[in-house]
Amino acid sequence: MKKAYLDNIATTLVLPEVLEAMLPYFRDVYGNPASLHDWGDGAREAIEEARGQVAALIGSRPEEIIFTGSGTEANNFAIKGLAQAQQSRGKHIVISGIEHFSVLHSAKTLEKRGFEVTRIPVDRHGLVHPDAVAKSLREDTILVSIMHANSEVGTIEPIAEIAKVVKRAGALFHTDAVATGGTIPIDVKELEVDALSLAANQFYGPKGVGALWLRKGTRIIPLLDGGVQEEGRRAGTENVPAIVGMGKAAELARQGMSPRTAHLSRLRDRLIQGLIATIDHTILTGHPGQRLPGNASFCIEFIEGEAMLMLLASEGIAASSGSACTSRALKTSHVLTAMGIPPEIAQGSLLFSLGVDNTEEDVDYVLEALPPIVDRLRQMSPLYGKFLKSQRGVR
Amino acid sequence: MKKAYLDNIATTLVLPEVLEAMLPYFRDVYGNPASLHDWGDGAREAIEEARGQVAALIGSRPEEIIFTGSGTEANNFAIKGLAQAQQSRGKHIVISGIEHFSVLHSAKTLEKRGFEVTRIPVDRHGLVHPDAVAKSLREDTILVSIMHANSEVGTIEPIAEIAKVVKRAGALFHTDAVATGGTIPIDVKELEVDALSLAANQFYGPKGVGALWLRKGTRIIPLLDGGVQEEGRRAGTENVPAIVGMGKAAELARQGMSPRTAHLSRLRDRLIQGLIATIDHTILTGHPGQRLPGNASFCIEFIEGEAMLMLLASEGIAASSGSACTSRALKTSHVLTAMGIPPEIAQGSLLFSLGVDNTEEDVDYVLEALPPIVDRLRQMSPLYGKFLKSQRGVR
Repeated sequence: MKKAYLDNIATTLVLPEVLEAMLPYFRDVYGNPASLHDWGDGAREAIEEARGQVAALIGSRPEEIIFTGSGTEANNFAIKGLAQAQQSRGKHIVISGIEHFSVLHSAKTLEKRGFEVTRIPVDRHGLVHPDAVAKSLREDTILVSIMHANSEVGTIEPIAEIAKVVKRAGALFHTDAVATGGTIPIDVKELEVDALSLAANQFYGPKGVGALWLRKGTRIIPLLDGGVQEEGRRAGTENVPAIVGMGKAAELARQGMSPRTAHLSRLRDRLIQGLIATIDHTILTGHPGQRLPGNASFCIEFIEGEAMLMLLASEGIAASSGSACTSRALKTSHVLTAMGIPPEIAQGSLLFSLGVDNTEEDVDYVLEALPPIVDRLRQMSPLYGKFLKSQRGVR
Repeated sequence: MKKAYLDNIATTLVLPEVLEAMLPYFRDVYGNPASLHDWGDGAREAIEEARGQVAALIGSRPEEIIFTGSGTEANNFAIKGLAQAQQSRGKHIVISGIEHFSVLHSAKTLEKRGFEVTRIPVDRHGLVHPDAVAKSLREDTILVSIMHANSEVGTIEPIAEIAKVVKRAGALFHTDAVATGGTIPIDVKELEVDALSLAANQFYGPKGVGALWLRKGTRIIPLLDGGVQEEGRRAGTENVPAIVGMGKAAELARQGMSPRTAHLSRLRDRLIQGLIATIDHTILTGHPGQRLPGNASFCIEFIEGEAMLMLLASEGIAASSGSACTSRALKTSHVLTAMGIPPEIAQGSLLFSLGVDNTEEDVDYVLEALPPIVDRLRQMSPLYGKFLKSQRGVR
């Protein structure tokens, strides 16, 4: 059976060059970077090279990169660590309603510790408007966190514009760039944020490693207490092979960004146009233009999404209905809800997230496999009557 | 030049079988375990197999294992998460004075949040006495954390006896088993603790993965908020290859524990006897009998330890002066201080931690290389006069 992996939002594959770069740090240079001997020296040098590679990807200084164990950890660290470091100045935090759960739930944890959180609405394309941010800011606002792009619907947020608003108010600004880091160009100097989260497994690096970029001089309270690793900001023996892999993946992403973007956008547009042409009552979700190159997200009306995923999986096609972090919770996406999409439409959510190894054949295979699945499910759906009625209306 | 790695306390090598087991999860089964398709299914099954392997190592149920990103994270999670979950019952915590920094500093963080921490003294062998624990317990004591063994001096603590005392008082009991997990037999039912931390890179598994064993039904507040991974207790995409590696390492440790222990103890005793016989004014630190099989820790008087490490490194020998997590801080070990060893002796701390691939030749190489280094350093030392005087006293 043909197989096509179009679930790169959940995690990308690890490029062979990345794995090659990691292997010596399992096999030979297995020391602890903190150790004062050859085994440690080699590991330490490798980490510092990786730090430089990740810094180069986002235009930062190497010493501003703090390696973490995941994008989720980077987000928890940023939200909780910055809020706690600033709490003598105020206890108000602003986030958007479409953040990843690692930001949403970190904010919720802070609420339990006496912080106040404002959640900004988004428009029907998932855009956070700088005006809405401006309106939310108060004297005691210490931290704003708005994601760089939403990976479920692909919308890229106007971070640089929002940053100007936040800066004027004197609050810190964090952006979750897990969906964009290594995928679209990022320059922290242009974005003018204070902190930015990355995850290697979103740009063909390994799982188990992420990074928080933190502007030099910004105070943060550690999430992981212990040894003096990462300048005392993140304790625990460094995951050397994974960090090396993240560095290599960052280097490859920086060098290959422009051809990768062209490839992904071409496939994305072919998939979007093809699906909308062949399956009626298909709505593209997210911003039509300002979107991630690999993101083709839809709501297919009169369908229950999970069943669609199962049938696609039985045809060898990997897709998702949104964030993998909640796929087993079977809830309507909070992102689609925040965009004003009614539950009966949101339940037909279907997300294809393309990766560098996808081909036109993969896209054509989806375009061939999906319509009969949709037909079959619509016939079985309790909404079938409604669907037929809508059809008569159309014709 | 001959090379000998005797710094297994800092991190062990990754066994070839462990790396072999990990590789498919980089190359082929690279999906997110949360995803609803083949790529995810394979990853999820692999994690559950590893969970079973780690559970078997410590005699627990699989569902009681929560994978983390390191031993440090497991300790932070246990201390902070259990304390926060219990805080309506009281705010008093008990730890020993020789805990790893991930426990010590987590407790310090809790102090800043209004908890009270009692630090129990140890005897000159580094033993925590159950009586001392009993004396420290109060009505409002909610959590006790005593390490299973101290990896710096090798002393194994009487955890099962301490557990009885703690249980009687109705507090939760956590033990940091990073130094013992996979090295000496552990059965959580016999230890009668409520939570236990492990790190794979202490038993020939990869860096970047640890585990917290948590007794079924014990409430804990997550350290990492976000997705619903690990039954909602630890968010973030699972580090599948590393978890698989930890599982494999656990299986190998369980199967090979008895020959490994025999091998390590033999080398350890050869090293201890050899060093004490050839270098005068050498003190074995830690408990003479109740100690980790691979631990040979000393204080060599009239020496500054860091210089000794450098010269050993220049002979190709990896050793340490204590915890790698603080080796760059160049402070006197808090463990030796807590054991009552005066600073001028503690500064000559030297720790050889043996691993499964060490040989008699490695030990003999150390026994040959170290005496001239010690001679040379003693002659350069400001304490040389005192040393000569002590020599005259001896002879």
